[in-house]
Amino acid sequence: MLLPPAVKLGLAIEVLAESADASASIAPHRVGDYRDVGAVLDFARGVDVVTFDHEHVPQAVLRELVAAGVAVRPGPDALRYAQDKLEMRGRLAELGLPVPDWARIGSKSDLRAFLGSHGGVAVLKTARGGYDGKGVRVVRSADEADDWLAGDVPLLVEEAVAFTRELAQQVARRPSGELAVYPLVESVQRDGVCAEVIAPAPSGGRVAQEAARIATTIATELGVVGMLAVELFETEDERILVNELAMRPHNSGHWSIEGAVTSQFEQHLRAVADLPLGATDVRDDWTVMVNVLGGPADGSLDRAREAALAAQPGVAVHLYGKAPRPGRKIGHVTAGGVDLDDVVYRARAAAAAFD
Amino acid sequence: MLLPPAVKLGLAIEVLAESADASASIAPHRVGDYRDVGAVLDFARGVDVVTFDHEHVPQAVLRELVAAGVAVRPGPDALRYAQDKLEMRGRLAELGLPVPDWARIGSKSDLRAFLGSHGGVAVLKTARGGYDGKGVRVVRSADEADDWLAGDVPLLVEEAVAFTRELAQQVARRPSGELAVYPLVESVQRDGVCAEVIAPAPSGGRVAQEAARIATTIATELGVVGMLAVELFETEDERILVNELAMRPHNSGHWSIEGAVTSQFEQHLRAVADLPLGATDVRDDWTVMVNVLGGPADGSLDRAREAALAAQPGVAVHLYGKAPRPGRKIGHVTAGGVDLDDVVYRARAAAAAFD
Repeated sequence: MLLPPAVKLGLAIEVLAESADASASIAPHRVGDYRDVGAVLDFARGVDVVTFDHEHVPQAVLRELVAAGVAVRPGPDALRYAQDKLEMRGRLAELGLPVPDWARIGSKSDLRAFLGSHGGVAVLKTARGGYDGKGVRVVRSADEADDWLAGDVPLLVEEAVAFTRELAQQVARRPSGELAVYPLVESVQRDGVCAEVIAPAPSGGRVAQEAARIATTIATELGVVGMLAVELFETEDERILVNELAMRPHNSGHWSIEGAVTSQFEQHLRAVADLPLGATDVRDDWTVMVNVLGGPADGSLDRAREAALAAQPGVAVHLYGKAPRPGRKIGHVTAGGVDLDDVVYRARAAAAAFD
Repeated sequence: MLLPPAVKLGLAIEVLAESADASASIAPHRVGDYRDVGAVLDFARGVDVVTFDHEHVPQAVLRELVAAGVAVRPGPDALRYAQDKLEMRGRLAELGLPVPDWARIGSKSDLRAFLGSHGGVAVLKTARGGYDGKGVRVVRSADEADDWLAGDVPLLVEEAVAFTRELAQQVARRPSGELAVYPLVESVQRDGVCAEVIAPAPSGGRVAQEAARIATTIATELGVVGMLAVELFETEDERILVNELAMRPHNSGHWSIEGAVTSQFEQHLRAVADLPLGATDVRDDWTVMVNVLGGPADGSLDRAREAALAAQPGVAVHLYGKAPRPGRKIGHVTAGGVDLDDVVYRARAAAAAFD
């Protein structure tokens, strides 16, 4: 999804892809392993700036790039906080930003103690590699975590926040420090996966100001360059707490392709290419994005796409060139308009064509 | 510009490019000559449907494709009317559509006679290959045309229409006959080249209905599949006359990338892939597109792009990956909003950064 804004701005782009599958093959690409220092260095020598669409490139690889004089944006000193939840929690706490209660877990007794002081329920997380509900589990007794505790993966535990909804705040930052703040959005999760996003978040009000303050503080203090997505909990007592960070275009910002003057993908390119940032104003009163998860059981995306386009000629349908598979994010749809109920209905109807 | 909607819809796309220059190299492509039947046939065998971004592919090549069972959209029976102005004028006159007075010119005396019956001034055109003011000249005496008359290029002559403004009407048509009609737009020409487009055309009114009727008649009667652009003259006595046809996404429709729910590029892909057409509603009260012609004299597009983005963060800047050269269309900018004067100002200001 970074390719269309590269075409628009006339910027050359090249992708280092894990495989020559359909998603990557529409862009100029070469195939290589992002964990292979040699492959990444060789790739990086041909470009002006390197950026990422996931946070799994190892710190060792990133630091080799920097040492070789490659412009890496965001850089390893920022990315570590998106790669490791222990580092992230520690740094945000240091900055005085609101986070759930949390603790590093080195032993079963650490977990037992945390459960004891938090009503007997908590969220256990692997510090690295989790996404879309993976690497996260709710525990009610320390015994439940024996398998994870037996491994050598660093763990942390967090209070099970009694939240009323989840929110996400996008902000872009240039190397110079220039910031562009998007409207706060509400994200609706199902089974740990983002299902829908409503932009702007209904009844944002005071919370929106606080979310913007938190996200701009994080972007500035952590030296993020590019898009930053801050996932937030809103609690029953109207506080907001930082849940996760992503330093790249994020699912919670896909609405911006049609819904904002400058999409998060174009904004990310502008920021990492050190170009002036674009306006973040909304283009409709309401924009609703619904993920297409899994896809048709018979594997026929052609028929589902045709049905979606026929049923909802005003809804934007995005498909990622991925084969249907249960639970896989294979696309998303976006509707916009003045009446939220109507916009939600149209977006869901288009997405339902892929069930 | 067909690449971004292909990414969006998850459609695989491949370009047969004249050369591996910057414009083509961002898309999956192979290099070949569109006049070479063998090269085009070989290319076409790997795809489901072939379409065009210009009208210069020879009829002989198109007919070989059709004979080989390739889906060619639009097909040669429609494209001939976009390729040859004599055929176009003849067919539109047959359909009773409003066109300027015209005549085939076989000799100097034909031209002299036409000038005599049209106030001593007329527009001489080559039947084929003209664009952006090329292949078109105003003549006031038959002697002026000696060079063209000496060649073996078929010529036609048309009355010099006393027009008050130029308009363009876009319509898309699917193989099934389904149509999608865009708002009528005004195009401002300078030196025979489109400089600006205003969507919708100010004070369209009754003329807009007539333009839609003309364009849908042409699309249906000529069997166009894909986008059709009908360039029109509005006369002092409030008639509209058909000037030119293009059966592809056209400069007069670039505004639709940001300004319409479905851009002309996505619509063209939908139509030729036989997918349901998208909504053509406008997204702003006014959308203004200004072409970037020539580019900076010092050849530095980077600095101009930066200046344009910095000065107008709400304007969409499109650059085509082409090197600056006097008069060359190297990009366009698009602004939208509620106040036409303001929208025109912002678009022109962004384009001026490239002067």
